[in-house]
Formats: sequence, structure tokens, C-alpha cells
Amino acid sequence: MPLLVMKFGGTSVADPDRIKNAALKVQREVERGYDVIVIVSAMSGKTNELVGWVEQTSPLFDAREYDAVVSSGENVTAGLMALTLQEMGVPARSWQGWQVPINTTAAYSAARFVDIPRKNIDQKFAEGFKVAVVAGFQGLSPEGRITTLGRGGSDTTAVAFAAAFGAERCDIYTDVDGVYTTDPRITSRARKLDRIAFEEMLELASLGAKVLQTRSVELAMRYKVRLRVLSSFEDTDQNSGTLICDEDEIMESKVVNGVASSRDEAKITLVTVEDRPGISAAIFAPLADAGVNVDMIVQNISEKDYEDHPGSVTDMTFSVPINQVERAKRAMEDARQAGHIAYDELVVDTEVAKVSVVGIGMRSHTGVAARMFKALADENVNIKVIATSEIKISVLIDRKYMELAVQALHDAFELEKA
Amino acid sequence: MPLLVMKFGGTSVADPDRIKNAALKVQREVERGYDVIVIVSAMSGKTNELVGWVEQTSPLFDAREYDAVVSSGENVTAGLMALTLQEMGVPARSWQGWQVPINTTAAYSAARFVDIPRKNIDQKFAEGFKVAVVAGFQGLSPEGRITTLGRGGSDTTAVAFAAAFGAERCDIYTDVDGVYTTDPRITSRARKLDRIAFEEMLELASLGAKVLQTRSVELAMRYKVRLRVLSSFEDTDQNSGTLICDEDEIMESKVVNGVASSRDEAKITLVTVEDRPGISAAIFAPLADAGVNVDMIVQNISEKDYEDHPGSVTDMTFSVPINQVERAKRAMEDARQAGHIAYDELVVDTEVAKVSVVGIGMRSHTGVAARMFKALADENVNIKVIATSEIKISVLIDRKYMELAVQALHDAFELEKA
Repeated sequence: MPLLVMKFGGTSVADPDRIKNAALKVQREVERGYDVIVIVSAMSGKTNELVGWVEQTSPLFDAREYDAVVSSGENVTAGLMALTLQEMGVPARSWQGWQVPINTTAAYSAARFVDIPRKNIDQKFAEGFKVAVVAGFQGLSPEGRITTLGRGGSDTTAVAFAAAFGAERCDIYTDVDGVYTTDPRITSRARKLDRIAFEEMLELASLGAKVLQTRSVELAMRYKVRLRVLSSFEDTDQNSGTLICDEDEIMESKVVNGVASSRDEAKITLVTVEDRPGISAAIFAPLADAGVNVDMIVQNISEKDYEDHPGSVTDMTFSVPINQVERAKRAMEDARQAGHIAYDELVVDTEVAKVSVVGIGMRSHTGVAARMFKALADENVNIKVIATSEIKISVLIDRKYMELAVQALHDAFELEKA
Repeated sequence: MPLLVMKFGGTSVADPDRIKNAALKVQREVERGYDVIVIVSAMSGKTNELVGWVEQTSPLFDAREYDAVVSSGENVTAGLMALTLQEMGVPARSWQGWQVPINTTAAYSAARFVDIPRKNIDQKFAEGFKVAVVAGFQGLSPEGRITTLGRGGSDTTAVAFAAAFGAERCDIYTDVDGVYTTDPRITSRARKLDRIAFEEMLELASLGAKVLQTRSVELAMRYKVRLRVLSSFEDTDQNSGTLICDEDEIMESKVVNGVASSRDEAKITLVTVEDRPGISAAIFAPLADAGVNVDMIVQNISEKDYEDHPGSVTDMTFSVPINQVERAKRAMEDARQAGHIAYDELVVDTEVAKVSVVGIGMRSHTGVAARMFKALADENVNIKVIATSEIKISVLIDRKYMELAVQALHDAFELEKA
């Protein structure tokens, strides 16, 4: 029997009526001949309520207890979804993480999958059940306690089940109808993509397109799980939404397929850093130790000797999430106090945004960067930092130009055209 | 290490502040040298919310899914209580039913305990944990699914743990400060009892005193678990509340220790029933089949022959919970239609109440009934039905006299005096 995984996020199961709406989509796939594994999130708002209670109770909470508490929201939805399907005449039952079992590491609140044995669920399919409703976001540690997977955990659960059960596809039902060339709130010319390659989606996800969690896309790419993003709130069919798949499945791709933007960036510059072997390690090790996610890094190579700096000096610029600025500053100042690094000044710019163009076609096409920089220059947008990978080019710019830059790039690469 | 079981009901753990208040009581017992097993209910209101969703989803729900959903409230409280204790420096962890495991029958939504192996929790005590916080009301079926125990399940969980772990005592923290001679809302002369025997508490519980669930008292009596009822919301010490214990522990008992009353009663009389061997079975079997809880039964033996009833006839009167009257009527009419029983008329009186006096002293003292009936007669309260057991006498009276009757009996047996 062909098998599908269908995942419904928190807004898609926010109350019994929405659960019913989601169940109708499951029923339709069963009628098409699929066995279905449904992965559910907690009703929207419920996980936040639980997290709030935990934080109120214990600011430095034991992650084991945190996980035991916050995983309960998904259990509720799983049971209600199973009941809803039964009510429609679809043989279904709910599964909590420990019942499957979804074996994970013991890294509470940030657990990773170890394995998902098929035996128990396969046996129920063999007995005539058509749907297994699995509580997302949770698992079982080696010591028999409940774990959770961290942010976006339910998407990851869905992909892991699709991989473990060899699903034909993993459908992620959410509150948007697919992946767009860029954020439709920034330009109405944004176009829904029918297909996008894993690598591109990975870049877009990590660059701020909030449709899918990066980790679930990584997992899908590794196990070649065909992933589809589509709307819970619209009539959908087998061609709806956006398919995220191997690039082999994409006939002809444009050079650039998407423009991503993120306003939650800050730029930090260490001015007049002593330039010696090992200086990068001396700067970025304490940042890593402090849990700061450094993104873009630029070093201005400086050959000239300043009067008061007899050796070679440089400026080091990097970007961090805006809410980690204070932590980064403290880590740098501590390292300077300890004599591990030396710099004249630490300059923070929190008024920046990151804009990126992404496309697997860049691998074989040249001139993308030039076209991008020209489009920005034509709008008088000054570029502060540039970073590139094989399939993307990112720039840091003044935040006030972010929307303008996105629109200009969307037009320059003609993304509105299919 | 001596061990205590402490149980906190829904109002005692209704929010993080109340959980903290409960945790302080636990901490105090730990400081006194006890290992503690804490049994928690769901935050008040939460179970009803979950039940509401289930009923909205599926009126004839699958009890397996119902249990999976409604058990989640206790898991939340257990985790929050463990976190609160940790925050106070008390080594604690939470336990869900399947982790202990609390093995039950597969009677979903009405499961019964099979056994509670001590191994896992004992091991944690040996490792230095001082408190095991266990989610009440739930268990694990032989097929590995979650069960719940039905109404009052958390009290029953507490008593079962006290029995399994040989606890010195099982303390039930609730929103009243003990067991009273009668409902203090009916007479201000009601007195809190320091001690009461299991048998008496069982009669009081089943007669409408809502302090403890009948089933938990039965279990405590069977395993000789000393049970204490006390307030979550007052300062309490080791002498607070009411101890429910074996009668051997009660030095000298009064003849009557409590007056119970219940207004949720209805009286049904079958007029002119053919009186033949087997007629009681013919009447009460269909009622039992319909799930009607018949309480008091009186048969008026009639020797005389009526003109139109050549054989011997009788009237049969019984009481049922008021919300089961329609079900009882239907069962009787169906039995009459089917020719299994014959009667002239079915008369329902929903304006009745039951008042009872309870005391283990009745076993060895006579004259209690006479004293009761005289007290009621002095107030011109007419008795409609009488039923007795070894340690209680119950009467059905007009509901409007209920409070009056309770006050009169409380005075007649001098229950205000210790």
C-alpha cells in the first residue's frame, strides 16, 4: 500500500472545527488508496501556554520536566484527530512518541532522532488501520523519559517518519499555500513556485523564509524525502502547493529562484584588530562558547602599519542575530580583558537587514553577482557586507532599504515570470 | 526511610502559585525526614476542557482516545510540581503512568489497578531523589495504551501508591479542612472529626459527602491505608484534618458519628404489581441492564385480593438518582410492553431527599432507629422509605424538610460534642 505522511501545524488544528477540516484532507488521501501517517502539532497557543507556566515556575528549568510538560499539547491533538477520523469512518488511532517508539538522543529540549522502528505502526496498518496519528515534536530518550525536538520539531518529525516508512511524499499543511519567490507582503509580484530544489529551500529557510524549519529540509534532503508545502485552509489537490524535491525532478530551473530577506540582523565590527595567525579563532571561539550564531564574516585585509600599531592590523566585521548582540559584546569584552584579543573599538550596527538571492542555477551560470550588485546600485542601496555560497549571494544593507532591495532584485531576475 | 503519599486535587494545583503552595507542604514533609510520593490532579478546569473537546469531536468516542487526551492534564501538573520542588532545592522528578508503570486493566475510562511495581521509583529514591511526583488518574493497559480510572481517579491513585509502597499515611489535600459530622452549610453546629473509621467514611462518601470518592475509601479499607483529609489552603501540621483509619485506632466512638444527606434522589413506585416469586428479579434486572443505580428498595407486602387482580398484589418502591428517572421509566415501560412485568401505574416523586445517620457504634448499640424516627416525628417530618445497614439508617423524606431533618438529627445525637 502506498504511504503518505501528512503534517498539520498549530493553526491547522487550532480547534475541533479545524481538526475536522484537516481530517477531511486525510480522509481524501485514504480514499485515494493511501495508508497515511498524520503528524500533528499542538493547538496553536497551547505550547506557548505550557512554556509560560514552566518559565514562571522555574527560570532555569530542568529540561526533562520542560519536555514532559510541553509535549502534552501534541498528545491532545493526536487523540482528537484520531477521534475525528473515526467519526468519519476512517480506522485511525493516536500514537504518542513513547508508544511508537520515536527513539531520540537524551538531549532534552533539543533531541535528535536515533531511530523510528516501524514494527508497531506497521502491525496496526496490517490489522486494517488506515491512519496512524502521531504526536509531533516529541520522542523517547534512552532512559525512558520524554524528549522534545526543539523549534519546528513537528516538521522534522514528519520528515523522519516519511524517511523511516518510505513515504511517497511528506505533505506539510500550513497557513500559506506554498513557497514563494519572495515574501508576498513585500511585493505583490511574488510568485508561488511549483517546485524548488532541496538546496534552494534550505538556503531560503535559513535566510528567513519561515515556511519550513531548516532542520526538516536538511533531513528531507539527506533522505530524499519529497516534501510538499500546501495550505490547510484551501481546497487542495495533488498538484497544490510547492514540491520540494531533488533537483533531478526539476526540468529547467531559472538561475535565481528566490529572494530572501531578514531584518533580525546586526553587524558588529571590531576596529583595528591585531592581524596575526590564529586571530580569527581567538575571536570566534569565545562567540561560539557564548552561544552566538555568527552568520556572515568579512575581514578587511590591511597591509599598512599604523603609528601606534607596529604590526599589521585589520578590521573584522560579522553579523549576528539582533537578539544576541549583548551576548556577543560581552564575549568580546571578556576576551579582550583576558588578553586573548586586542581591538580599539567595537562598533554595533543594529539597523541592518540581510537580502539574498538563491538558485541552484548559479552553479553553472556566471554574472549573477554582477547583476545583483547593479540592481542594488541602480537603487542607490549601499552594500555593507557580502557573503556567497555555491547557490546564494547575501548582502547586508541598511534596514530601511530592505523592501526596496527585495523588489529591485525580484524584478532584476524576472522572478514574476514562470 | 519512612514514606508518605500526598495527593493534591485540581483546586490545590490550579495555577503556578498554588502549585508552589502545595510544594511547600511537600518540602516540609521532606524536611521531617520522609520520602514522598506526590499524586497530582490536573489544574482545575483543564480536564473539563479536554472532555469538552472530545465530546464535541465524537459523541460516541473511542475510550482509548478519550483516555489519551484527558490524561494529559495530569502530566502537565506533574512536570510543573517537579520543577517547583527542584526550584526549592528538593530533588524531585515527575512520573507519567506508563513510566512507573501503573499497570491497569484495559477497561478504558474506567480502568482498575493491576499492579504498581516499585522498582523504578525505589531506584530513584535510592539515587537520592526525595520526591516522586506521579500524574494521578491514569495508567497503562496491557496493550501499551493509556488508561484513565474514572471519576475521583486521583484519590484512588494516591491510595494505591500508599498501599504499594507501604506508606505511613496517605494525605489527601483538598479545599476543605476535614470530614465533618454533617455538611457545615446545613448547620453551623457541624463539627470536624479528628478520626473516623473506614466503614463510616465509606457510608458517608456513598451517601453524598463529597470529600472523598467512595472507591478510594474502599481501597484504603482493603489495604489498611491510613488516609488523612486536610486543607491545601491552611497552615497544617501533623494533627490537622481528619484521619480515616481502622476502627481499632479509634479509642471511643460515639454511636452515631455523622449525618449525611443527598438531594439528588427520586422515588419511583410501581403500583399494584403482581406479587409472585421472581417478580423482584423481573423488575430490577431491566433496570440494571439500563444502567440505573437503584438505591433503596421497599416492597409493601399485600395479602388482600383486589377485585380485578385475582392473585396477590404488592406495591414496589425504589429510589434512583434523579438524573436516571427517565431511563428507569423507559426500562419499566419496555418490560411491561414485553410482558415481563405487570403494574397498574408508575408514580415518580422527584421531590425527595435522603437523610442518613452513620456510626460503627450502631453495631453494639440498640435504639438508634427509634431515636432517629422520634427526632424526625418531633419535627413532623414524614418518612417515605426506610433502609438500614449494619452501621447506617437512611430515610427518604420530602426534599423541603432535608435541612430541617439534618439539623434535628445532628442535635438528637449530640454530634456537636466531641
